[in-house]
Amino acid sequence: MPILGPEGPRAVTAGAALLADCLEAPQVRVDWRPPLERLSPDPGVDAANRVAVERMLAARPVLVAVATALETIPGMRPDLLLHSGPPLRWEDASGPLRGALEGALRLEGRDSADLEPCHHHDAVGPMAGVISAGMPVLVVEDPDSGRRAYSNLNEGLGRVLRYGANDDAVLDRLRWMGSVLGPQLAQALAAGGPIDLGAINQRALQMGDELHNRHRAATSLLFRELALRGLSTESLRFVDANDYFYLNLAMASAKLACECAAGVEGSSLVVTMARNGTEFGIRVSAAPDRWFTAPAGVPLGLFLGSYTQADANPDLGDSAITETYGLGGFAMAAAPAITRVVGGNARTAVEATLQMYEITLAENPNHQLPALDFRGSPTGIDVRRVVETGIQPVINTGIAHREAGVGQVGAGLVRAPLEPFLEAHRFLAAERAS
Amino acid sequence: MPILGPEGPRAVTAGAALLADCLEAPQVRVDWRPPLERLSPDPGVDAANRVAVERMLAARPVLVAVATALETIPGMRPDLLLHSGPPLRWEDASGPLRGALEGALRLEGRDSADLEPCHHHDAVGPMAGVISAGMPVLVVEDPDSGRRAYSNLNEGLGRVLRYGANDDAVLDRLRWMGSVLGPQLAQALAAGGPIDLGAINQRALQMGDELHNRHRAATSLLFRELALRGLSTESLRFVDANDYFYLNLAMASAKLACECAAGVEGSSLVVTMARNGTEFGIRVSAAPDRWFTAPAGVPLGLFLGSYTQADANPDLGDSAITETYGLGGFAMAAAPAITRVVGGNARTAVEATLQMYEITLAENPNHQLPALDFRGSPTGIDVRRVVETGIQPVINTGIAHREAGVGQVGAGLVRAPLEPFLEAHRFLAAERAS
Repeated sequence: MPILGPEGPRAVTAGAALLADCLEAPQVRVDWRPPLERLSPDPGVDAANRVAVERMLAARPVLVAVATALETIPGMRPDLLLHSGPPLRWEDASGPLRGALEGALRLEGRDSADLEPCHHHDAVGPMAGVISAGMPVLVVEDPDSGRRAYSNLNEGLGRVLRYGANDDAVLDRLRWMGSVLGPQLAQALAAGGPIDLGAINQRALQMGDELHNRHRAATSLLFRELALRGLSTESLRFVDANDYFYLNLAMASAKLACECAAGVEGSSLVVTMARNGTEFGIRVSAAPDRWFTAPAGVPLGLFLGSYTQADANPDLGDSAITETYGLGGFAMAAAPAITRVVGGNARTAVEATLQMYEITLAENPNHQLPALDFRGSPTGIDVRRVVETGIQPVINTGIAHREAGVGQVGAGLVRAPLEPFLEAHRFLAAERAS
Repeated sequence: MPILGPEGPRAVTAGAALLADCLEAPQVRVDWRPPLERLSPDPGVDAANRVAVERMLAARPVLVAVATALETIPGMRPDLLLHSGPPLRWEDASGPLRGALEGALRLEGRDSADLEPCHHHDAVGPMAGVISAGMPVLVVEDPDSGRRAYSNLNEGLGRVLRYGANDDAVLDRLRWMGSVLGPQLAQALAAGGPIDLGAINQRALQMGDELHNRHRAATSLLFRELALRGLSTESLRFVDANDYFYLNLAMASAKLACECAAGVEGSSLVVTMARNGTEFGIRVSAAPDRWFTAPAGVPLGLFLGSYTQADANPDLGDSAITETYGLGGFAMAAAPAITRVVGGNARTAVEATLQMYEITLAENPNHQLPALDFRGSPTGIDVRRVVETGIQPVINTGIAHREAGVGQVGAGLVRAPLEPFLEAHRFLAAERAS
């Protein structure tokens, strides 16, 4: 019997155990909405999706090396800057992306460079995601397939290149990362052997991380591995000072798994979600080189200090690769503490994860969520399910100031726009019909 | 409307949002039982309890040193062995406690020794809790009061002294801990400064630890502090190999806070819960030197390998000091993953914490539980509330084999027996009447 108290409705039962059991049973609030499109069953697509998502689940990310982008990223050139999200022209870049590009040019001592997405080079970068030839990058490998994915090193919090800051302190830090941190990480890995990121991801999800905006556990577990490999105290201090250090490793893990799943004919599995501050884009397994895009939304969030929603840049960064792999917003049930950063509460965190099961193809047995009694995280977004349900993928994200160089102003939740999913669905349907 | 499905009852709602809100609201299953005793209000006791629990909450545990028991524990002597729980005679010791005492005698090269509880020397030890003069101990201090509490160093998992194992490998490890690990920890603290355990406890509760049977996060955070203080790779490896390493630091933290709260005239706050494998005992703030005891129960649990309930020793160890401080079983809502170790599921973990609010005096603002939207953990057991409600404090515990030397056979949940609480209540009532 519902009772309205000062804190809202409560349900109090006494006696009949069946009613009490029902109240305590998993709740299903029917959130009925008309489908965007009614789809007929397609066993061919289902079979292709099973193959693709199995490949995603089977990937085993291992950190094998750290080297400069020029040395290791396929197709990297001295006159090329990589950036986050779908392809972008200089003139379309938002404030923070432009700030990061200009900083990277100064870092490399150049007047100009070509632009290409990180994703065109098996790489990912958070926020502006700018990677230049001389920067050290993480090399993450799947031992079975030999496939590799790459990300840059996390600079820390505050005024950093990925949020468009590019003053001397920012560039000095990047130079130190190139000349000290990168080589020392490379040396530690060479001396002590590769680091199993899959095992760290797995444990961190049982330690309150969702691996997009909360990495304290994963960074701690990585720190243990690096210290035992003899990383210098100077470099350990840098890692210790930044609980986001693991973000780029989580992203490279996710990118690797998504690359493993790309290229399955007929599959409507999403293998990329990424934002460049201007556009939001996705790619699907059946057509992994083709972007489907829409204008990037502005995240609703919690803001630092005196910043407000009006300061927020449109959605930015390759970090939505974590959600593409069933982490981040999809794994929020693992991380009730994230609500202090992105908003909501423990219940909405669980609800976000539960809703994502509606649009995903699998439950990842390696990414168990203790709060859901070890159910695997919802993994592998199916374009068809998004179109059928109208449920938009949820993304936990940092929020950049819309002007270059100011830095992070907050964090929040954003929903992926539906248009790219509709467009991808129509493209796939036309391909199959032809 | 309740629907019985294959997985049990579910509640499905559509339409009326109020009913749905009620179903989703916090559930209160009224578990009515007759009070053990009906108590009249006593403002004097209430005031004393406020003072006592405020002192408990105000304590700030800081790890300041590591030294031998003889050097640092008040009243320690070469011919004395400390043990867990209330006072015990050799002839009453259960298998694992006897095994640990015999091992400690051999370690010290002695034929006999007196026995006293750790708790009589401001110290605590997990399981058998045996501390001998030459063992290195952790020194935890409250900076404001200068008060100190002590615990031994955690040996790791498997065959260890605290579970009654005492073969050569066990003693060799203890000798290494005395000659290498202890001095190196002392040196790291001397060189790098004290370590704020309060901050680690606070963070670990947001990272899936409940700080009695799950310490992976706290051990990781401690590891970071120790590595930055230059602890040797050999000693770091020992810490890294044992995610229970932090247990003894959590226990010393809790002991310190409980000692700070002891000795408030008229207060019915519990400042000790401890088991010696034969008896379970408590002490209260108003009479901190007096034990109230009952026979120790046998924990119900999950068992390792082929062990069964029949192998379990009665409840053992000072580690219930964590529950006395609002951690462990009281903070299970922080640690749904603990259910893999002690049984139950995510819901029963939350329910255990919710029930403990019924018998505690405060919510610890430093021990926030993200799954309860950052509500403070239920802290400070009130003997009167236990007597009024009949709710027994819940304890997460390791389970020892009842024969000496076998080691850990499982872990589980145990409820404190009610008799000591009733006895303490009658004693306090008589004191106030006289």
